[in-house]
Amino acid sequence: MAYLDAASAAPLHPVARQALLASLDEGWADPARLHREGRRARLLLDAAREAAAEAVGCRADELVFTSSGTRAVHAGMAGALAGRRRVGRHLIVSAVEHSSVLHAGELHEREGGTADRVAVDRTGAVDPAAYAAALRADTALACLQSANHEVGTEQPVAEVAGACRAAGVPLLVDAAQSLAWGPVEGDWSLLTGSAHKWGGPSGVGLLVVRKGTRFSPAGPADERESGRAAGFENIPAIVAAAASLRAVRAQAAQEAARLRELTDRIRTRVPALVEDVEVVGDPVRRLPGTVTFSCLYVDGETVLHELDRAGFSVSSGSSCTSSTLTPSHVLKAMGVLSEGNVRVSLPAGTAEADVERFLEVLPGVVAAVREKLGARRPQAVAEGDGLVVDALGKLCPIPVIELAKVIGNVPVGSTVRVLADDEAARLDIPAWCEMRGQEYAGEEREERGTAYLVRRVR
Amino acid sequence: MAYLDAASAAPLHPVARQALLASLDEGWADPARLHREGRRARLLLDAAREAAAEAVGCRADELVFTSSGTRAVHAGMAGALAGRRRVGRHLIVSAVEHSSVLHAGELHEREGGTADRVAVDRTGAVDPAAYAAALRADTALACLQSANHEVGTEQPVAEVAGACRAAGVPLLVDAAQSLAWGPVEGDWSLLTGSAHKWGGPSGVGLLVVRKGTRFSPAGPADERESGRAAGFENIPAIVAAAASLRAVRAQAAQEAARLRELTDRIRTRVPALVEDVEVVGDPVRRLPGTVTFSCLYVDGETVLHELDRAGFSVSSGSSCTSSTLTPSHVLKAMGVLSEGNVRVSLPAGTAEADVERFLEVLPGVVAAVREKLGARRPQAVAEGDGLVVDALGKLCPIPVIELAKVIGNVPVGSTVRVLADDEAARLDIPAWCEMRGQEYAGEEREERGTAYLVRRVR
Repeated sequence: MAYLDAASAAPLHPVARQALLASLDEGWADPARLHREGRRARLLLDAAREAAAEAVGCRADELVFTSSGTRAVHAGMAGALAGRRRVGRHLIVSAVEHSSVLHAGELHEREGGTADRVAVDRTGAVDPAAYAAALRADTALACLQSANHEVGTEQPVAEVAGACRAAGVPLLVDAAQSLAWGPVEGDWSLLTGSAHKWGGPSGVGLLVVRKGTRFSPAGPADERESGRAAGFENIPAIVAAAASLRAVRAQAAQEAARLRELTDRIRTRVPALVEDVEVVGDPVRRLPGTVTFSCLYVDGETVLHELDRAGFSVSSGSSCTSSTLTPSHVLKAMGVLSEGNVRVSLPAGTAEADVERFLEVLPGVVAAVREKLGARRPQAVAEGDGLVVDALGKLCPIPVIELAKVIGNVPVGSTVRVLADDEAARLDIPAWCEMRGQEYAGEEREERGTAYLVRRVR
Repeated sequence: MAYLDAASAAPLHPVARQALLASLDEGWADPARLHREGRRARLLLDAAREAAAEAVGCRADELVFTSSGTRAVHAGMAGALAGRRRVGRHLIVSAVEHSSVLHAGELHEREGGTADRVAVDRTGAVDPAAYAAALRADTALACLQSANHEVGTEQPVAEVAGACRAAGVPLLVDAAQSLAWGPVEGDWSLLTGSAHKWGGPSGVGLLVVRKGTRFSPAGPADERESGRAAGFENIPAIVAAAASLRAVRAQAAQEAARLRELTDRIRTRVPALVEDVEVVGDPVRRLPGTVTFSCLYVDGETVLHELDRAGFSVSSGSSCTSSTLTPSHVLKAMGVLSEGNVRVSLPAGTAEADVERFLEVLPGVVAAVREKLGARRPQAVAEGDGLVVDALGKLCPIPVIELAKVIGNVPVGSTVRVLADDEAARLDIPAWCEMRGQEYAGEEREERGTAYLVRRVR
């Protein structure tokens, strides 16, 4: 039994549990009240704010607690965009931000604003020069994550923050994935975080707005948390969040080194143990505990189920999971394979033995899924000197599996047309070509679905 | 030591504490994930939703959990208003709603909508006929609390809901104060609640949207909680909220009868023990545990401090408390005295002895504050056949104290002009006249502040 999905939610840190229990009796009252219970709650809230601000590297009066990281992002973006409305309504985000950032950006566009999505390279990182080039005279806000939640790649935040500062544009950093490991470097203006990502309790996010940043809170007026986070404060959880952040930070350097070594093993050994695997994300500039790879010819959901049965909890950015029908926007933006995608994110304290056992179990799981799927017969039809594979109605990874089966049947120089209507094919067929050294020759709209053209070159 | 401020926040119920602890280990993971920890969290969330829905009297798929009652109100109002935008942009609220409702209404007006505030009588209740008369062809939403948070008066929700239903207008009921005692009767469309009001943990609100109610969630898209409450679910707190709601409901009938008897003692005996007191709110149609009164010639903040020192935690709607500069909008809408306002709200389980001791202590506390304030000399200046009291720059309750001191110095039929610039005087001078049988003759704007005219009639 090993939980390897810390990037979704980390198990509650013992210090968080202890602090939560201790403050249930002291922190339930309304901190706005004058009576002793209210004053006691206020003291706890103030102390938690001081502790969190110190860990983030800001002033206590710059930090408010929200009810989640998502809420912090929504409130931060809306407030910063409204605060600079006179400057303009242009927003910049990276293409691989968390959905909370992208969805807030989409809302901004629906309301008449404009947004640019800065592209990333194959490792998932933005180019600071490209980011800087997106800055305009009417840019109200720029957003960049500190590190990517799906592939672990760290973004060049300090450089981008410098460019934004020079242009007079505030930068909001979504630091949800990295705050456990240290403060965010650079001259950013707003920052958001989420306690349950660092082992704090659910129900606590944080939003930092640096002094001097124009900010106009969105939504109905509310007196709590400087008007930036409406609703009764969840003080026991806030106390637990701040205490656990301090606790994880005390071990951060040591634990980061240990987890980095463990994820390095996965990065190195998975491609040796399993054929047709692409490990994605930057191999060096990355979060210590996160590693992501994609396996050809398997579907993400079945792999998750089989790993779960074997005692490993991981997650997937594949389109073949129940919760989603489109492949991860992150993998798409990176232009890497999405099929059979597996994200392993180690919580602090993960045992070496668990990682070793994962590496033992994985090849058998992937092989079994491949064998099951490989039993299906491809439907290839000769057409001129090429071949047509009809994968209409088939979900990822079937179109790629059928392509792989027939590519050897056409002469070098000929083209295979793969007809598919699953959205993942658009990403995975070019990624397969890249991995297998074949030439991707583009797509053509068909009456039903799309034809993806692959030229055999070897 | 007695905490008598349950209407602000109730102490954590033992069942809530127990359920919270039990689910910390089971409910921290992401319920959207497919692995066992995610599935376990999802089961807990689903079970809590079933339990809460049963207590509220709705279907489980009509209820979502938010991060606070305020958030539930904001999300419910915004979603209902947006859902019926084609019908119109007219909103109806009562004048004594919680600030979360009023602030959401103000935002709606800033964004181009219109809002009517239905007046209340001296008990704080709306007249159902007057409420119905406010309904228009372009009314998108109507809001009415189940019971008032400051004075405990129950609203005629079922009758108003009937009128709204007949007009095809959805009614949102803010049930924050009453949900501990039972479901809200009547054919309402939306309902909101707040767990920490019934002894549940901080960080949980609930929003019910009946099937068939047009609803278009505001804010950025988010997949959680049917798209109606963005951000990672706080499952341990949600489990605790649902469990404690069931627990308080199991004792509700018995405990309501007991608390009602205790608050009846306060209603009856305070006016006998303390001179110049006005007990406010409906004496019969009211919450079992809440009783509110105002005392002439004292300021709310000092009374709170003295009661706190004597071991009693209560709250105040006076303008003379540190957290606010204007008197409670509720007392203002009722047209009752706001000075020296004290709200006593008994948590479930309040000991009879605590109430008795409160009744023993209160007269001395009020007398001491009055004596301290009464030491100030009034500044009355003869002017024609009347008198001018210059209370400019003086805060509540000084203007009223000075008026009371000089009224005997003018002949019956003469007028006293009280010059004041404290906002509370506008409410408290007429209320004083009503209590003392003198005639309030209106106000006149002065170069600085306002002159309040009081004619001595006895």
